[in-house]
Amino acid sequence: MAFSEIEYGVTDRIATVTLKRPERLNAFTFTMRGELIEAFDLADADDDVRAVVVTGAGRAFCAGADLGGGGGTFGHRGEGETVDGAPRDGGGTVALRIARSLKPVIGAINGPAVGVGVTMTLPMDIRLASETARFGFVFARRGIVTEAASSWFLPRIVGIAQAMEWAATGRVFPASEALAGRLVSRLYPAGELLPAAYALAREIADNTSAVSVAAIRRLMWSGLSASSPWEAHAADSRLMAELGGAPDSVEGVTAFLDKRQADFPMKVSEDLPPAVPSWPDSPYGV
Amino acid sequence: MAFSEIEYGVTDRIATVTLKRPERLNAFTFTMRGELIEAFDLADADDDVRAVVVTGAGRAFCAGADLGGGGGTFGHRGEGETVDGAPRDGGGTVALRIARSLKPVIGAINGPAVGVGVTMTLPMDIRLASETARFGFVFARRGIVTEAASSWFLPRIVGIAQAMEWAATGRVFPASEALAGRLVSRLYPAGELLPAAYALAREIADNTSAVSVAAIRRLMWSGLSASSPWEAHAADSRLMAELGGAPDSVEGVTAFLDKRQADFPMKVSEDLPPAVPSWPDSPYGV
Amino acid sequence: MAFSEIEYGVTDRIATVTLKRPERLNAFTFTMRGELIEAFDLADADDDVRAVVVTGAGRAFCAGADLGGGGGTFGHRGEGETVDGAPRDGGGTVALRIARSLKPVIGAINGPAVGVGVTMTLPMDIRLASETARFGFVFARRGIVTEAASSWFLPRIVGIAQAMEWAATGRVFPASEALAGRLVSRLYPAGELLPAAYALAREIADNTSAVSVAAIRRLMWSGLSASSPWEAHAADSRLMAELGGAPDSVEGVTAFLDKRQADFPMKVSEDLPPAVPSWPDSPYGV
Repeated sequence: MAFSEIEYGVTDRIATVTLKRPERLNAFTFTMRGELIEAFDLADADDDVRAVVVTGAGRAFCAGADLGGGGGTFGHRGEGETVDGAPRDGGGTVALRIARSLKPVIGAINGPAVGVGVTMTLPMDIRLASETARFGFVFARRGIVTEAASSWFLPRIVGIAQAMEWAATGRVFPASEALAGRLVSRLYPAGELLPAAYALAREIADNTSAVSVAAIRRLMWSGLSASSPWEAHAADSRLMAELGGAPDSVEGVTAFLDKRQADFPMKVSEDLPPAVPSWPDSPYGV
Repeated sequence: MAFSEIEYGVTDRIATVTLKRPERLNAFTFTMRGELIEAFDLADADDDVRAVVVTGAGRAFCAGADLGGGGGTFGHRGEGETVDGAPRDGGGTVALRIARSLKPVIGAINGPAVGVGVTMTLPMDIRLASETARFGFVFARRGIVTEAASSWFLPRIVGIAQAMEWAATGRVFPASEALAGRLVSRLYPAGELLPAAYALAREIADNTSAVSVAAIRRLMWSGLSASSPWEAHAADSRLMAELGGAPDSVEGVTAFLDKRQADFPMKVSEDLPPAVPSWPDSPYGV
Repeated sequence: MAFSEIEYGVTDRIATVTLKRPERLNAFTFTMRGELIEAFDLADADDDVRAVVVTGAGRAFCAGADLGGGGGTFGHRGEGETVDGAPRDGGGTVALRIARSLKPVIGAINGPAVGVGVTMTLPMDIRLASETARFGFVFARRGIVTEAASSWFLPRIVGIAQAMEWAATGRVFPASEALAGRLVSRLYPAGELLPAAYALAREIADNTSAVSVAAIRRLMWSGLSASSPWEAHAADSRLMAELGGAPDSVEGVTAFLDKRQADFPMKVSEDLPPAVPSWPDSPYGV
């Protein structure tokens, strides 16, 4: 696959997406936007991919929107789809694509993650960071707003008080503050970040049913939107009926009772049950 | 009351529900499911019960679904009600019964709590645990999904990143990880767990109006579902109008001004105000 | 502006609202209720105000509703608007006014904050407290319910388990417990609290676009209500289209590229974009 601003590869059932404009601190462009969406389409379609790790090439994760356009940068929103008559926010198209991923997504934040560089990580399942990473929701310092649907994601991840403090000040803050505020789950010395991300991906790949994880990912994220636990209960009941007697469940329980590693036969591409829930309002039905 | 797989008793205005199949690590069955629901019905109907403590007999809290049925276990979902054409998820029927409890519920997690053994605790108000407890959302390792409406409860309790890490890996983790991830509020040496749970229940029983606590429990939990604070404000206004001049409020304020212990006259069975909110979608209207 | 139970002043682009009945520990009255709402109207209308700090005169922040009416206090809910046929809960009218503030609000909790004295702080963006502050959601000890829409705010700020523990026990707890439970962001020695609050307000005032911060505040708080990230994405897209080419964005990006302090020309009173979202159910459309 030929990408120009990212790199995509699959090794040992783990996909890696690398933001790759190191000379520009991996600043976000309209091209990168499209390539990221395409990479997640590839990962979802490939049954050999059990988890996705996202990281940056060089010393940054992503410095935010490329400001090469100068003062008018945010006045030119690129081509593409519209929503309510306005061009779709570019960061949001990436964030929502990641949100509906069928594979769990691990952010390995290796350096500065600022603006869309950090908001794009919010729909990832787990964020790990280097001790040298820095973060900033700098939008109010640029005269714009927190984008990439981060007004939905951020207060649900770090709480509204922490979200408002970071967004209203627009401050750039160190990894230690991100950890204390629960924006990231764990910090690692720079050289240990990627190994830790891969170890976590491997824990998923080696032990779990891909169909279960895909269904669970959708249940959990859409569960954050569900109007009540009764809605979740209806989805659970249908999914348990669909999956409870299916081959992965028979293998999972049998392997557990036999005290051996399970070898799950089902595939996300073919066996995802119909009851897997979708987001409200999503035009994609997922 | 004759139960076969749980024990239920009331002492000094605190009900205790004990999961009681110690020879099977209190593994969850269809019978246990029904008995748990019945126990919460009893607690709600009994004005002498001010709080409920749930714990396990022997060394486990609950090892999850009883896998005595072998590989086909989850293919046989028991008898009973359906939802959307599927048999209702059994763990969910318990979880939703606990969610609509009129009495505050304290989980005293004395040992392993795995699968439905941990998801059933999520609608409890407060989880305390023994330092020797272990936890696991192991569903993806059995080829099924996080059930018991846990896709609604878990990310609201521990955050979506922690919820997804536990659910996608299916790992079994120690009490220290549960505490750091805010799944439980506090840890205790094994022998101090039940005393701590009872001390907390007593703090409620000795100091508060039963009607206030029942109304507050419904307000808070349904508040997690409310579409906006304006909805909460409407419920508050009606409840303050109904309770503000009622005997418990007169006694509560007078006792406070007199610097004495209050003796609240109102009863949950008779005096619960009509404005107490219900869950969206609940067929029970509560 | 002549207020009788609060003080309002603006210095160096920061408004201070001081609860001012020190002889009654700043206990909340119907008069104070109206004056607080008026103060937030003033702050919103004044382009010279970039942030609001709320604190208490004397040794308390606010001891809760004034119980001078004795046992019947909560039976007399004051005059004013109704909702669903009931008089609007007074604390809720303040809380919802703060919730829809266009300026970020910092609580500087200098002493006891009990009952409505703490629930009124929940819609503030950030709570800082003195090490000597104390807190209590004491409603169940007075025979009433958690008001001021706190059933919506509190579990979203501190989690449902912490919210229920505080609300069901009605206990009064020290600042250290408030910090551990994430009710407040940071503690300070008494003499350093107000300077810290002003330093935070200044970080906002000196570095950010007022229009951006107003739009972000609405996005974030209504984002907590949004049914899905797709709803947030629609709002983002419209706001980025409206603000991306506007003078504050041009100045913000240009100043950043020039490595100088930005001087944002836009005003909240005139330039707030139409796409700024409103709360569901709000009769104010904001």
